[in-house]
Amino acid sequence: MHFMTALRAAWQSRNSLLCVGLDPYPARFPAHLQGRPDAILEFCKGIVDATADLVCCFKPQIAYFAAQRAEDQLEDLIAHIHERHPDTPVILDAKRGDIGSTAAQYAVEAFERFRADAITVNPYMGRDSVEPYLEYADKGVILLCRTSNPGGSDLQFLDVGGGERLYERVARLVANDWNASGNCGLVVGATFPNEIARVRHIVGDMPLLVPGIGAQGGDIAETMQAGGTADGTGLMINSSRAILFAGSGEDYAQAARRVALETRDAINAKR
Amino acid sequence: MHFMTALRAAWQSRNSLLCVGLDPYPARFPAHLQGRPDAILEFCKGIVDATADLVCCFKPQIAYFAAQRAEDQLEDLIAHIHERHPDTPVILDAKRGDIGSTAAQYAVEAFERFRADAITVNPYMGRDSVEPYLEYADKGVILLCRTSNPGGSDLQFLDVGGGERLYERVARLVANDWNASGNCGLVVGATFPNEIARVRHIVGDMPLLVPGIGAQGGDIAETMQAGGTADGTGLMINSSRAILFAGSGEDYAQAARRVALETRDAINAKR
Repeated sequence: MHFMTALRAAWQSRNSLLCVGLDPYPARFPAHLQGRPDAILEFCKGIVDATADLVCCFKPQIAYFAAQRAEDQLEDLIAHIHERHPDTPVILDAKRGDIGSTAAQYAVEAFERFRADAITVNPYMGRDSVEPYLEYADKGVILLCRTSNPGGSDLQFLDVGGGERLYERVARLVANDWNASGNCGLVVGATFPNEIARVRHIVGDMPLLVPGIGAQGGDIAETMQAGGTADGTGLMINSSRAILFAGSGEDYAQAARRVALETRDAINAKR
Repeated sequence: MHFMTALRAAWQSRNSLLCVGLDPYPARFPAHLQGRPDAILEFCKGIVDATADLVCCFKPQIAYFAAQRAEDQLEDLIAHIHERHPDTPVILDAKRGDIGSTAAQYAVEAFERFRADAITVNPYMGRDSVEPYLEYADKGVILLCRTSNPGGSDLQFLDVGGGERLYERVARLVANDWNASGNCGLVVGATFPNEIARVRHIVGDMPLLVPGIGAQGGDIAETMQAGGTADGTGLMINSSRAILFAGSGEDYAQAARRVALETRDAINAKR
């Protein structure tokens, strides 16, 4: 499966731009899962199976697994998605960034060990730190550009010459150089709709992963207006906590489905 | 153990600025370790026990463990260093960078799960992405500033106003703001001695982690001249492959010790 092909197919067949972020935080799990050794896997499988027909992709955040010594459950979760929902691409949210020889190891981790279809990568170390991921031509490489957090402005909003901001330079480098194989995307936070529009202008119809709606305060209508492509796609709009923890009981997966459906429809109403 | 206290003590007691980077690449292991399920741990323990009295710190690179599904061996390795070489601080080279809630999980991974004394962090997402690490006041937080790879210039060398380069802005932010608890350091590559000197000028006697000597081509004399503090310390000069793979036989650890000793002495000759 080529990530970009699968993503575009999912946008169409699911009629959805929603990405469900899998950030499993055990303290917020329903009581019936608390204390189980496989609680993270079971919790996430419940979310995945209840929402797969509503999403264009899933995005597990590796930090939540690593903090719990649960890499094996992340492997099993991604294997489960591939087996049960084979048309749903998986983005490993890892934000790795290192020199080439080390990046090659991270690429093995993401694409061979965890079998992710795409990975998020930090651009601070430049092109040669990204190339080992790009060499997996059927995998997606989604570079941080304008992140949704307040501190994102500390560096990303700096003027790097002629009024161009650092995040715009990143977008331009990726669009004009790093994306030679057509497998790149960018992360642009929903909390900065003006910057989403700037990035969209720079990168054409490159897919944008947009965190920051829901808990972080980003607005769906502004995001769609700023970042949607002419055909009403181009975005993976992520929601994590609002969906994962929509319910706190045994029916948490059904509660998650309801919020995922509402979110998908709220997005579609603005396409 | 406070990382900064331990580092300064190690600089003095070992009379060494050498950091040995633990980047275990199984294909290059000696034949007698090939195929063993604990080969990574055994290889690294051999290096550690042969060189601990010659170094100011060790720096395991997590990617090499993650690619091999060997997080358990990384846990055991760091536990071994703490037990056998309790005065030698351990920097987990992970270059993490994410929004606060996720960074908090990475901090748990680094400091509670792996029990590292310090971690490398990517500054691209700004201050709030670094705070969860800073809150561990006895741990070191070593921010990427000017990395040793060729692509490091793509972003880090951009002029962000008045002739200030992005890496200089990072150094200034860290020195004047993020380092309120005195637990920050910076990564500055040996391949750019002029920039080491600029960073040293900006940050006073903040510790600098310097990769890039040996395989990457950085020069020890230039590094010491540019980055050493008045008392002849201030640097953690990293060498990985040149030491780890100095030998390829059963005596690989003794070969590693010889090169570590030569490197330590070559550094000391320029102090």
